[in-house]
Amino acid sequence: MGVLRLAHVDISAPDLELAAAYYTQVIGMDISERTEDSLYLKCWDERDHHSVAVRFDPRVGIDRFSFKVEHEDDLDHFERRIEQYGYAVERVSKGDAVGQGESIRFETPSGHEMELVADITKVGGRLPLLNPAPYVDGLVGIAPPRLDHLLIHAEEVPEMAHFMRTTMDFHLTEQVLSGEGHMMGAFLQRSLKPHDIAIIQGPNGALHHFAFWLDDWDHVRRAADILAYNGISIDIGPTRHGITRGNTIYFFDPMGTRNEVFTGGYRPDPDFPTITWTEDQLGRAIFYYEGRDNGRFLTVHT
Amino acid sequence: MGVLRLAHVDISAPDLELAAAYYTQVIGMDISERTEDSLYLKCWDERDHHSVAVRFDPRVGIDRFSFKVEHEDDLDHFERRIEQYGYAVERVSKGDAVGQGESIRFETPSGHEMELVADITKVGGRLPLLNPAPYVDGLVGIAPPRLDHLLIHAEEVPEMAHFMRTTMDFHLTEQVLSGEGHMMGAFLQRSLKPHDIAIIQGPNGALHHFAFWLDDWDHVRRAADILAYNGISIDIGPTRHGITRGNTIYFFDPMGTRNEVFTGGYRPDPDFPTITWTEDQLGRAIFYYEGRDNGRFLTVHT
Amino acid sequence: MGVLRLAHVDISAPDLELAAAYYTQVIGMDISERTEDSLYLKCWDERDHHSVAVRFDPRVGIDRFSFKVEHEDDLDHFERRIEQYGYAVERVSKGDAVGQGESIRFETPSGHEMELVADITKVGGRLPLLNPAPYVDGLVGIAPPRLDHLLIHAEEVPEMAHFMRTTMDFHLTEQVLSGEGHMMGAFLQRSLKPHDIAIIQGPNGALHHFAFWLDDWDHVRRAADILAYNGISIDIGPTRHGITRGNTIYFFDPMGTRNEVFTGGYRPDPDFPTITWTEDQLGRAIFYYEGRDNGRFLTVHT
Amino acid sequence: MGVLRLAHVDISAPDLELAAAYYTQVIGMDISERTEDSLYLKCWDERDHHSVAVRFDPRVGIDRFSFKVEHEDDLDHFERRIEQYGYAVERVSKGDAVGQGESIRFETPSGHEMELVADITKVGGRLPLLNPAPYVDGLVGIAPPRLDHLLIHAEEVPEMAHFMRTTMDFHLTEQVLSGEGHMMGAFLQRSLKPHDIAIIQGPNGALHHFAFWLDDWDHVRRAADILAYNGISIDIGPTRHGITRGNTIYFFDPMGTRNEVFTGGYRPDPDFPTITWTEDQLGRAIFYYEGRDNGRFLTVHT
Repeated sequence: MGVLRLAHVDISAPDLELAAAYYTQVIGMDISERTEDSLYLKCWDERDHHSVAVRFDPRVGIDRFSFKVEHEDDLDHFERRIEQYGYAVERVSKGDAVGQGESIRFETPSGHEMELVADITKVGGRLPLLNPAPYVDGLVGIAPPRLDHLLIHAEEVPEMAHFMRTTMDFHLTEQVLSGEGHMMGAFLQRSLKPHDIAIIQGPNGALHHFAFWLDDWDHVRRAADILAYNGISIDIGPTRHGITRGNTIYFFDPMGTRNEVFTGGYRPDPDFPTITWTEDQLGRAIFYYEGRDNGRFLTVHT
Repeated sequence: MGVLRLAHVDISAPDLELAAAYYTQVIGMDISERTEDSLYLKCWDERDHHSVAVRFDPRVGIDRFSFKVEHEDDLDHFERRIEQYGYAVERVSKGDAVGQGESIRFETPSGHEMELVADITKVGGRLPLLNPAPYVDGLVGIAPPRLDHLLIHAEEVPEMAHFMRTTMDFHLTEQVLSGEGHMMGAFLQRSLKPHDIAIIQGPNGALHHFAFWLDDWDHVRRAADILAYNGISIDIGPTRHGITRGNTIYFFDPMGTRNEVFTGGYRPDPDFPTITWTEDQLGRAIFYYEGRDNGRFLTVHT
Repeated sequence: MGVLRLAHVDISAPDLELAAAYYTQVIGMDISERTEDSLYLKCWDERDHHSVAVRFDPRVGIDRFSFKVEHEDDLDHFERRIEQYGYAVERVSKGDAVGQGESIRFETPSGHEMELVADITKVGGRLPLLNPAPYVDGLVGIAPPRLDHLLIHAEEVPEMAHFMRTTMDFHLTEQVLSGEGHMMGAFLQRSLKPHDIAIIQGPNGALHHFAFWLDDWDHVRRAADILAYNGISIDIGPTRHGITRGNTIYFFDPMGTRNEVFTGGYRPDPDFPTITWTEDQLGRAIFYYEGRDNGRFLTVHT
Repeated sequence: MGVLRLAHVDISAPDLELAAAYYTQVIGMDISERTEDSLYLKCWDERDHHSVAVRFDPRVGIDRFSFKVEHEDDLDHFERRIEQYGYAVERVSKGDAVGQGESIRFETPSGHEMELVADITKVGGRLPLLNPAPYVDGLVGIAPPRLDHLLIHAEEVPEMAHFMRTTMDFHLTEQVLSGEGHMMGAFLQRSLKPHDIAIIQGPNGALHHFAFWLDDWDHVRRAADILAYNGISIDIGPTRHGITRGNTIYFFDPMGTRNEVFTGGYRPDPDFPTITWTEDQLGRAIFYYEGRDNGRFLTVHT
């Protein structure tokens, strides 16, 4: 299979108490583990150790994003391919990272640290594996079942998209082309979703947002209610994307990292043809209802 | 009973063909009647002749708004009370207005022409009165079941609210007070809804918007899809009001009149206490998710 | 105005602890007051002292249903009309009933005790009257905002419907007629809803169900999830009524009283014409999706 | 990748006109091709030639079900593995089946004809590949975006499940075990859904149902409205499965084949552990709200 899905996004923030309060009470994640300088969080339907890690740092930023591969052997396979592509790969031994076994890390053409890992500690979800009710009692906050995707910036989108496709077999579901035919945005998937990772033109190394999945449009409304009730700054939404067709809200965690709740979309198999958006339709591509960026969406990142 | 509900809003527009296309294909109303200079439209679940009238005029504006009273006798009763209050009342004879019988018209303290009418021609809804299916086949566009309310401007909101309450027994469900305690907004009902008419401080005689009812939050999404698909300019939304608790989209008809689709809210009985909003909370009162006006909402009207 | 709305339904049950657990944890009502033999409960958006009362009794049944009138004077007015109609009226003094002032009680042609009351103690809802957020945090269970209606049985439906219309000005929104034209079901309203009370042919004095309002179809799903999760016996649903057009679930409280959650419907003004269902369409009238009664709906009552 | 997804279900029916009317007007599929004895249908968001084929035959039944593989080479690969497993494989040449290229067919341990195909004629979906609006105008009927899964019967469920897992790498997401630990039901996936195919104990060769995907719970309601409005026989629902967590309606096409509309569920990666249901919880496993089979669900099939 190779790369399975987005495993976790590791960010930094200057206030771990505030991060813990927000990600558990407003988002409704569970804390799996807490170390001296980091917080490891998971959604109720995730069985892996964490899908979001927050490390204390005076600066808000992204440390790395991590994708899960199916087998330990995949690490060797991808190490070779990435090195052949020309990027140095570092091995992280079991025990050197919290909640997971051996992994490989490398810098991407977009200037991010990316990780591949096969072995993540299973801590289990909120539902049992024997006769599970389809309803979970006692959830708090927005309570998304799982992490969905992330969006990063890259100075050279085509370069980063090419790297992801060539070395790790990502599929290009959608792309945005400038008037001159230059790729300004790329949407890539490995898990039969509109995107597991998206790349938009911007400063190398920057995180635009990461997104939680919601099952239903009504949960999007409830998320907006909860965000507003808790005084969280909503960037835009509830609205709809042209790209991915998904319904969405963007908002900022109290430390400044942009989050999203996302639902809808479609199921692209490997034989799904790439959808192309032209720059003159960028407004509708990003926010279908507004027909234009809100002036903050393409400029604010961490 | 006295005043029952908002009966119809009569606007003017410079292009009746465009108005007909928009109100039938995008909103999904039915045309009840067409005269040389006017268009009479109704929603599928309304039985009365029309809830929106559009008269040809080079200028976009509002001609009048009309409320239905229960009995013919109510016209005499309200004529007396309005004249005693100090406003001149004009009788319009049966036959002088399309689709309805005798009515009374008068200028309000807000500089609008208001009408009361008991007898409106029943043209029937899309559902039969014998064994009606709860589902209507073949609707097009947004297809709201009915008109819900309108919002007008008034230079002196307290004066207009007092007039509506004193002469026609409207109930004040919510009010917005300035720091000095001046009433800047008033929400008034006669039909056990958060509002049948709202009044916001602004130029006398101006219409802010009229609103169609939708049954469900999912219909709000579908409305946004249809509006965007048809290139209609969305002012704001889908979002939620603090005032009324309703979910909403504001948008402009192609001639420039602001429309709304609205759902939710609560059921205020006559013993419902008035809710008060203070000016410092005006942002959340108007748009709960955004927490602020969009800079257009309080300035653009017709 | 006269009669405003259904105020409260007073039932009896053999286990007050079980009743308290169910109505607070599964339904999500608040306990307003508890006396030696009774439990008084209200929904979060209700301001009155209670909408459901449960009295300890070895037998499950209905003690009475109570409608709110607008003014104290209305009690005199309705006392006269009901006595003229031929039914004895009893005055209950302030202090003789918990949570309310003076009331009148009388036996109806359907063999129920009915009450009218103007003065109910205001204990307030969960939302403040100053700058209320449209979202309520910390609700548990289904958490309906309010009681909606009740359905009772009567041996002679036309007689009971005539009584409600003649003495208390109820409007007949829908009726079911047998092949011979006999009225088998009557749906009556005072608060611009499809029904505040419904009457179906059956044993005098029996309660079929009382219903809580939900705002949205998605809340109906959530209610079904919560009911099933808590092992509550669902009678039928989620489904839809032909009559009233509402979406619904019927279920039994642990003591045996049928409850309903209900959403949707329409807004019938006083000039709303009566909808008629014929007996051969009774299946679709009751359960539009199933097209037939489930064999329990018309036979089980308390 | 190997097996990608359920490609098409080929059924037989005694009335092609009725089938065409139902599958286009009620379900809302498009007809891709019509031959002398068969009808080829697809959903609006499917790009392949067909997902349902209906062949004229006096008897209602299933001809075969077909899964798509990624590459032509996969056909050789799976031919070998299936033959090694002990089942004869037939090659169907390009041109011998409508709307697709070469395929392999074989009888399964459950007595069904199964097909694998790599090359299906692309006829395209309703949305363009250049700047597609996320909303499709002019759909009729229920209009599901795509086929989702099928459920077949097998006398020996473990044997069939073992065959699917061993020869074609299906993943077992959920299983139902009898008191003696015998596998009575198996849910298998290849496309990161709760199931692409399910197997329930019953007569070999029988089809229980095939299911269309819906994006939202509100679309489930709308589907129920449309089904009831068109007089389609609803088997059960709207309700919810314990197994898969999905929301659902079962109903019969006018010729007698059971259809389903389905939404929700979860996303099982290859490392997703198998969920086990015990026979004593079978009622909740199948219909979580009812807590029991409706007496027809496990006995009626085609």
